[in-house]
Amino acid sequence: MVISSVQNPHVKAVLALQQKSAERRRTGLFVVEGRRELEHCVEMGLEVKEVYVCREIAKEMEGMNVTEVTKDVYEKMAYRGGTEGVMAVVKSEEKRLEDLELRENPLIVVVERVEKPGNLGAILRSADAAGADAVVVCDPLTDLWNPNLIRSSIGAAFTVPCVACGSEECIQFLKTRGIQILTAQLQDSELYYDTDMRRGTAIVMGTEATGLTDVWRQAADAHIRIPMLGRLDSLNVSVSAAILLYEAVRQRSGTREG
Amino acid sequence: MVISSVQNPHVKAVLALQQKSAERRRTGLFVVEGRRELEHCVEMGLEVKEVYVCREIAKEMEGMNVTEVTKDVYEKMAYRGGTEGVMAVVKSEEKRLEDLELRENPLIVVVERVEKPGNLGAILRSADAAGADAVVVCDPLTDLWNPNLIRSSIGAAFTVPCVACGSEECIQFLKTRGIQILTAQLQDSELYYDTDMRRGTAIVMGTEATGLTDVWRQAADAHIRIPMLGRLDSLNVSVSAAILLYEAVRQRSGTREG
Repeated sequence: MVISSVQNPHVKAVLALQQKSAERRRTGLFVVEGRRELEHCVEMGLEVKEVYVCREIAKEMEGMNVTEVTKDVYEKMAYRGGTEGVMAVVKSEEKRLEDLELRENPLIVVVERVEKPGNLGAILRSADAAGADAVVVCDPLTDLWNPNLIRSSIGAAFTVPCVACGSEECIQFLKTRGIQILTAQLQDSELYYDTDMRRGTAIVMGTEATGLTDVWRQAADAHIRIPMLGRLDSLNVSVSAAILLYEAVRQRSGTREG
Repeated sequence: MVISSVQNPHVKAVLALQQKSAERRRTGLFVVEGRRELEHCVEMGLEVKEVYVCREIAKEMEGMNVTEVTKDVYEKMAYRGGTEGVMAVVKSEEKRLEDLELRENPLIVVVERVEKPGNLGAILRSADAAGADAVVVCDPLTDLWNPNLIRSSIGAAFTVPCVACGSEECIQFLKTRGIQILTAQLQDSELYYDTDMRRGTAIVMGTEATGLTDVWRQAADAHIRIPMLGRLDSLNVSVSAAILLYEAVRQRSGTREG
């Protein structure tokens, strides 16, 4: 079967998942675009419900429940261009804090009230690279299966354990496990590279617009800041997260300064 | 005068500058959107030729050659939404390597063959934050006045000196001035935090897709790599640049490890 009409109910169902977080919540499904991203889903054991392939673009996918669609239909279903003609509907798995498997001295990123799915995706990508144990999203204003998030994470949405929960719940979880809370903020803070990150550490980021709420500032073991040496006054939140994560990597590598 | 037609020649001229690098090159003009971004242009002494304000959105701009436009016209002219109803046509200034004013032990970012204007804008933003002396773009596939670049730099396109030139010319410039060349690459490389960045340093980045060309690898004083500790295999190029720049900041701060 080749779907050639954008009125086809499968096409409409995919579009609803792409466009509406309420529909993703209701069905427990999300859409992944791209061959490599789909491979990461499969590797991580997520349940792939349907695969759509554009014959004009993609090669055959083996061993999956594949439906072919025409190029016009594919482009209507795709969130963005350039996704190799492969997309799938996948079952989302909601993780809770208790489900996280943390190493000794874990490294965790906490993001409070993040609004932009693209920023959260970029944070996940950096968290994967730095080998972080988990990303916790507190009181999020986006869901974890937003197509822009998935796309900007280039697969890290599947490789990095990610939990959404309330701030109070997260603070209690960290304190119970003796994980230090380092909040990124400009006021009343020390330079991030003067802070010991070798023990279990949660790096907590606020939004670019409004920063962290008081509940996190008060729960912090230390406030840390990245020095701003230019004329502007901000780093992208995912860039800040990467700088802080890699300082922890550096300190934990056991390397001495030259 | 209020422009209310998208057929108005001013509107067409702005659109041509937004959409065509050849038109930007021919006229030596570019478009900046947003009040803060325009302020950075003025601060840096760039010549503002025309300002367009959408009366429904923006407050009055004083002391500038302002043309009012209707909301429909503004939205047609704007590259993206949410730019506060202010945009301007500005004279671009081409800088050459010899024009750069470098401090003692300068810190420079070199980006080879960058394709995505958004990545270059993000690199400029991080370079501003880390107090880098300059960004040099070698053999670029985008021009420095692309609207997506300007927007993602949130003004750093004006605050950080930026030069486009050939790779050979740039290598000779760096070698003549005794600035060490550190190339970011995975093969045959040392960990970036094991590398001394306190002397004059150029951090050289390739594209995410193809990495650096041989001319840079061979010119390097050291090859450096950011360890990849996750399941995926890549960091965004602007994130990598920020991690490396802030390692130089850390080393130059004179702080000792805890």
